[in-house]
Amino acid sequence: MLPQAAYGLTELNREAVQQSKLIANPGCYPESALLALAPAVKAGIIGRDIIIDAKSGISGAGRGLALNTHFGEADESVSAYALPGHRHLPEIVQELAAMRPRAEAPVVIDKTVRVWPATRAGESGPPRVTFTPHLIPMTRGILSTCYAPLAPGALPSGEASRDAVRELYRDFYDGEPFVRVVDSPPATKQTRGNNMCLVYPTVDVRTDRLVVVNVLDNLVKGAAGQAIQNMNAMLCLPETMGLDAPAVYP
Amino acid sequence: MLPQAAYGLTELNREAVQQSKLIANPGCYPESALLALAPAVKAGIIGRDIIIDAKSGISGAGRGLALNTHFGEADESVSAYALPGHRHLPEIVQELAAMRPRAEAPVVIDKTVRVWPATRAGESGPPRVTFTPHLIPMTRGILSTCYAPLAPGALPSGEASRDAVRELYRDFYDGEPFVRVVDSPPATKQTRGNNMCLVYPTVDVRTDRLVVVNVLDNLVKGAAGQAIQNMNAMLCLPETMGLDAPAVYP
Amino acid sequence: MLPQAAYGLTELNREAVQQSKLIANPGCYPESALLALAPAVKAGIIGRDIIIDAKSGISGAGRGLALNTHFGEADESVSAYALPGHRHLPEIVQELAAMRPRAEAPVVIDKTVRVWPATRAGESGPPRVTFTPHLIPMTRGILSTCYAPLAPGALPSGEASRDAVRELYRDFYDGEPFVRVVDSPPATKQTRGNNMCLVYPTVDVRTDRLVVVNVLDNLVKGAAGQAIQNMNAMLCLPETMGLDAPAVYP
Amino acid sequence: MLPQAAYGLTELNREAVQQSKLIANPGCYPESALLALAPAVKAGIIGRDIIIDAKSGISGAGRGLALNTHFGEADESVSAYALPGHRHLPEIVQELAAMRPRAEAPVVIDKTVRVWPATRAGESGPPRVTFTPHLIPMTRGILSTCYAPLAPGALPSGEASRDAVRELYRDFYDGEPFVRVVDSPPATKQTRGNNMCLVYPTVDVRTDRLVVVNVLDNLVKGAAGQAIQNMNAMLCLPETMGLDAPAVYP
Repeated sequence: MLPQAAYGLTELNREAVQQSKLIANPGCYPESALLALAPAVKAGIIGRDIIIDAKSGISGAGRGLALNTHFGEADESVSAYALPGHRHLPEIVQELAAMRPRAEAPVVIDKTVRVWPATRAGESGPPRVTFTPHLIPMTRGILSTCYAPLAPGALPSGEASRDAVRELYRDFYDGEPFVRVVDSPPATKQTRGNNMCLVYPTVDVRTDRLVVVNVLDNLVKGAAGQAIQNMNAMLCLPETMGLDAPAVYP
Repeated sequence: MLPQAAYGLTELNREAVQQSKLIANPGCYPESALLALAPAVKAGIIGRDIIIDAKSGISGAGRGLALNTHFGEADESVSAYALPGHRHLPEIVQELAAMRPRAEAPVVIDKTVRVWPATRAGESGPPRVTFTPHLIPMTRGILSTCYAPLAPGALPSGEASRDAVRELYRDFYDGEPFVRVVDSPPATKQTRGNNMCLVYPTVDVRTDRLVVVNVLDNLVKGAAGQAIQNMNAMLCLPETMGLDAPAVYP
Repeated sequence: MLPQAAYGLTELNREAVQQSKLIANPGCYPESALLALAPAVKAGIIGRDIIIDAKSGISGAGRGLALNTHFGEADESVSAYALPGHRHLPEIVQELAAMRPRAEAPVVIDKTVRVWPATRAGESGPPRVTFTPHLIPMTRGILSTCYAPLAPGALPSGEASRDAVRELYRDFYDGEPFVRVVDSPPATKQTRGNNMCLVYPTVDVRTDRLVVVNVLDNLVKGAAGQAIQNMNAMLCLPETMGLDAPAVYP
Repeated sequence: MLPQAAYGLTELNREAVQQSKLIANPGCYPESALLALAPAVKAGIIGRDIIIDAKSGISGAGRGLALNTHFGEADESVSAYALPGHRHLPEIVQELAAMRPRAEAPVVIDKTVRVWPATRAGESGPPRVTFTPHLIPMTRGILSTCYAPLAPGALPSGEASRDAVRELYRDFYDGEPFVRVVDSPPATKQTRGNNMCLVYPTVDVRTDRLVVVNVLDNLVKGAAGQAIQNMNAMLCLPETMGLDAPAVYP
């Protein structure tokens, strides 16, 4: 039944979700990585070399009993895992590949029309993604730090590139109830217990790299909350129904 | 007096440390990043595009009072900071730049002679480093995840590249009392309270990228322990004197 | 204006709260201690010697900057404080003293009438309370463990006393939306982010002592949530209005 | 072989330990409780009603896998357990009972002779102990808060009682390398990774109760460290041999 399923990242695939009777709910890591990278990939402003360094709370490993989730092992420690390839990597690559703009086709951003043909990045072919998940001594939350080279000329140079990329992201997510583009690096605690994703895009002007940091709660926006959002979309209910709880902070 | 100072990363600069009367003790982040990357950079097996994604316990921010180190803010949360450029970035870049092999000069690894001229990487000029530090809800420890493209042909292809890079690292750190090249991704807790640095180099074979993960305790190997190690070297004492405490685990 | 103020522990003082225009909102520790002890004190089943050993998350100390709330100090550590007398102690003593049944007066529990004259405890005078707060390495939550000698003959002897005391507590809190008498020792996490108080009363049958453990979130039921509950009562709104969020678990 | 075993709390039973070939190494909770209460019980200054409220890090539950030690359950939460009777309770009661001074027999404190006949407490028979252990979201450490009524007249009244009890404790532990009587409430972190026990005795002058707070690392002084100390004593080695590591702070 896979061909009948719509990929349920509502913000990126709303129409398909609304029309489908079967949803493939995203994994928590792809949810985070794709919301971080979609505006840049769709606009063609970055090249193919993408690095996603993800930090997840331990609930991401589930409630099953294992030594690496025992408090005495996980507490006060951070570690990387799944370096040869996490099971969420193919999902990330598949969706990023599907996003790349076709050459010469105009890219339509919410309010205005912008044209960033893929050729501007001077590259073709699917993205080359390295994805490294890390276990963090906290219960909930994912923070992804994503890196990619800017396509030459895609953005104004120097400090102005930061404003430009933030404007691009704001346009892209304009009107979305659960994605907010923020002005300073977010903390996972800011989304603890609710369905928000906070996205902070910026540019490393010394190296002409896009750096995007985003956060969400892997047990809400990264899983159950996203499923409810999809259900709401499928049933023509307001997408925010049942999902308007504020974060529990601190 | 800066010109008289030797850069005190003992493993990489032992002779200068032994002969100097003034040591510039490394910052904790550079310590971690340089030990992760030195074998690869000196051997010329990677290109210039280097990304260092560092995760630090909160003691890295010092004991001064600030909102971001208040328990209620820092606990159960992870965040990135200093994205426009951390004060340790110039130190990292300076030392990585000094390490790059001169073209055509042979690279001597501990036991054998290997020739990896820089030109193999097809690039010249200083490294282009993006460094992103993150605050982790734990007291001690740094884990750095470093990414760089492999120079074409520098390593055997496929899975064999992993063994080759590990062997390169083992040769490089052979005999070092405080650096251990490990076979699986390390956790910061494994070095808590002692002067060890555990290094795990591997290759993302899908993208031909070097990925190195290393851990150390920012309050020992990343600071006071390194200073003692330098002092020992300067005074012709055994380098391990006063530094042989085991890690406190868990 | 103190004489005009009603003590705003709604469950114990509902009528006065409803009729007052000025509420003295309880401190988080008194809230926890009084809900743990009220049924036993009002029923006269315990003597005067009361020990309250409270464990609080660090948000109880507020958001101000101080060394004892710095992450590096508070994390992975537990300590007692305010042993000479915490500022909440007088509030606890005052309210416990006001609760003690007058000799020979019948004690009316919700559904039935029970007579537990204070003389049964063989003691007169105000309660003698020792209150020791502890700082726990977590952000939110209070757990109070309360100890008091059972009045001779007040409860059936042996294991049956446990059922009897639980029934007494259930009767006392019957119908209360925010207090639940539970069958096994609760964890603070079970009330994280919501307005519930879970109470577990039991008897140490070897020593004829009442032991009551209860939990609540100091930032909800222990403060803002209680204030909203009081406001609702004052304004003749449903007491649960705005307070029906589930706990955020885990 | 039980009758041949000496109870291995070195500070309280040194001679027997030195002469025995079989040691019963104490549990971590009894270790903490007995070091907190021994000076007062041996001096006969407290009555029989003793409450021990213990807070333990999660390593106390061992490394076996169970839901209550899963990070997601244990983190950011505190709970009481084993209320009907922890397996360490009989050990605590047995040793406290053995400590009580015989009526009219003089109690010899280290340097001076003091006479505190048990009858001063106006009570006879074994101690009545309630022991409640709690799980704290940290890996290592035990803090015990102990409560007992002062025998009438045993100490000077008012604030002076605090100095008197501290002096009594200092005399009792004079010369002990691993027990330190401290002037302010200690934190478990102060003994993390080493073999020290810090003891803070005080008096609640409003209620004439002794309150003792002490801390130790359950994985060192509460277990392996104590075993080494015992072994040293048995073999006539310096008791501190192998045990002089400082705490790892913070």
